[in-house]
Amino acid sequence: MTGPARDPDPAAPPSGYFEVDRSADVVGASFATTTDPRLREILQSLVGHLHAFVKDVEPTVPEWESAIAFLTATGQMCDDVRQEFILLSDVLGVSMLVESLNHAAGGRLTEATVEGPFHMVASPERQLGADINVSAEPGEPCLVTGRVVDQHGIPVAGASVDVWQANARGFYDVQRPNEMPQGELRGLFRTDAEGRFHFRTIVPAHYPIPTDGPVGDLLRATGRHGFRPAHVHVEVSAPGLRTLTTHVFVAGSPYLDSDAVFGVKQSLIVDFATVDDPVRAASIGLSNPFRHADFPVVLRRDERAGG
Amino acid sequence: MTGPARDPDPAAPPSGYFEVDRSADVVGASFATTTDPRLREILQSLVGHLHAFVKDVEPTVPEWESAIAFLTATGQMCDDVRQEFILLSDVLGVSMLVESLNHAAGGRLTEATVEGPFHMVASPERQLGADINVSAEPGEPCLVTGRVVDQHGIPVAGASVDVWQANARGFYDVQRPNEMPQGELRGLFRTDAEGRFHFRTIVPAHYPIPTDGPVGDLLRATGRHGFRPAHVHVEVSAPGLRTLTTHVFVAGSPYLDSDAVFGVKQSLIVDFATVDDPVRAASIGLSNPFRHADFPVVLRRDERAGG
Repeated sequence: MTGPARDPDPAAPPSGYFEVDRSADVVGASFATTTDPRLREILQSLVGHLHAFVKDVEPTVPEWESAIAFLTATGQMCDDVRQEFILLSDVLGVSMLVESLNHAAGGRLTEATVEGPFHMVASPERQLGADINVSAEPGEPCLVTGRVVDQHGIPVAGASVDVWQANARGFYDVQRPNEMPQGELRGLFRTDAEGRFHFRTIVPAHYPIPTDGPVGDLLRATGRHGFRPAHVHVEVSAPGLRTLTTHVFVAGSPYLDSDAVFGVKQSLIVDFATVDDPVRAASIGLSNPFRHADFPVVLRRDERAGG
Repeated sequence: MTGPARDPDPAAPPSGYFEVDRSADVVGASFATTTDPRLREILQSLVGHLHAFVKDVEPTVPEWESAIAFLTATGQMCDDVRQEFILLSDVLGVSMLVESLNHAAGGRLTEATVEGPFHMVASPERQLGADINVSAEPGEPCLVTGRVVDQHGIPVAGASVDVWQANARGFYDVQRPNEMPQGELRGLFRTDAEGRFHFRTIVPAHYPIPTDGPVGDLLRATGRHGFRPAHVHVEVSAPGLRTLTTHVFVAGSPYLDSDAVFGVKQSLIVDFATVDDPVRAASIGLSNPFRHADFPVVLRRDERAGG
């Protein structure tokens, strides 16, 4: 290793040719002509990380062919009511990461989580206190209450609170159109003058994501299950405040520690307490005993926007 | 920043919950149950690099949705004769990287390059010296010669030399089934006792990869062209030696410095010299003048296998 360098190559290739050692630079340079600076940034970063991954694992040609076949099958599984690439993003934790990066919740702000694939229909507008279990599906009767405030604790009157959930067998209305009326277990509420909302429902069940496609094959090959713990989706918006998309998870549900899509955060797990109070049950229109979950919501008021 | 640490959280979440700062660890741990150790290694590496990419660019939700839509469209573009995900792998330099990692060519060994999508039909067996331009397509007449040796310079007799190429308008037979007979500009030859091969053809043209799908959209959005420089595909195999998949690139072709799939290596660019020699032309059955490319091939003999 001493003495003059050996084997300098007098016929070194021009800088543009592909070489393993600087493959990401060569390919990244091909995107230098991209006029949209954000697209250029994304693609050049993609190339860097993608080539680092390939060099890390050094796939054989058959392994690369398997990856091509998997991605192709994932695209071909998609149709109007099935989005297998979102499912893949979900089980790889990418959806949750994108959601978290876009909704960093410092301080007292309520944390966000994934929206999921079942917000495909508009929730029907309902009065505060309404029962979203409109067709009296079997299940444990439940009261959900909450209050929407901003980061200074100021109540947000008239905020939109959109909720949707699975039934006690783990199905959303759009999955069982012949059994559940559209809008079942969905509701769009407005908070009152004190920022409060409340509605009646049943306790949702845990359920599996669809596993009859390539993502299901991946889960089986890796010994992972496809279940999500029980939850109620909540999306809260109001003028001048950042929209929050999150879940209320049912404390004690199976799979809280191993959500297939990594959506659980400690702060979103809520006690659905059993209440044995015939008078109160009668006053709100539920059978006794019932469950009660209270979910305070703290939104960020975007003060730069003057909202 | 001095004094006791502030805000220790007495209700710190269990280690399994998702957090941005250790998202790749949480998701990677979900694959710990994978019984196939190679699959586990690949997926955990994928998660690490994929999450690093997402954190690097911090996509907005609409950008993430655009990525989902692009991948979905890429899968849905695929059919029996079109593989858009291979094309995507090609234009991102991944195909070339995988090929290069699997066929590192140290010392005198001939370098490999991508196989490409047009080796879908078997080349017809032909005698040494045959003309693979069987239907007399227009183009510059050309002689290709070569010799196959191992890394010690020992000739390899009886080696299989499979060649395929585009015509002078840039089309392969499989792309123009109504105009070009199947097997046109393809041939499977055997080297002679001295390891030599030779055949007649026409000089191929440069051509564009298919740009009517999502990959074409990507190239247009980034100001990249879709052309490949002119080349003849060569695949050489023999018992006891590692199979080589490579190209002979035509020196002076457009796009040598900007191959859309990054396949060019300096060592694979060959002078297709013009020969003005009526006697030699007549003896090999070409019109005069003709072009001549000589492509020596050095294969790796796998000595551990005793071949």
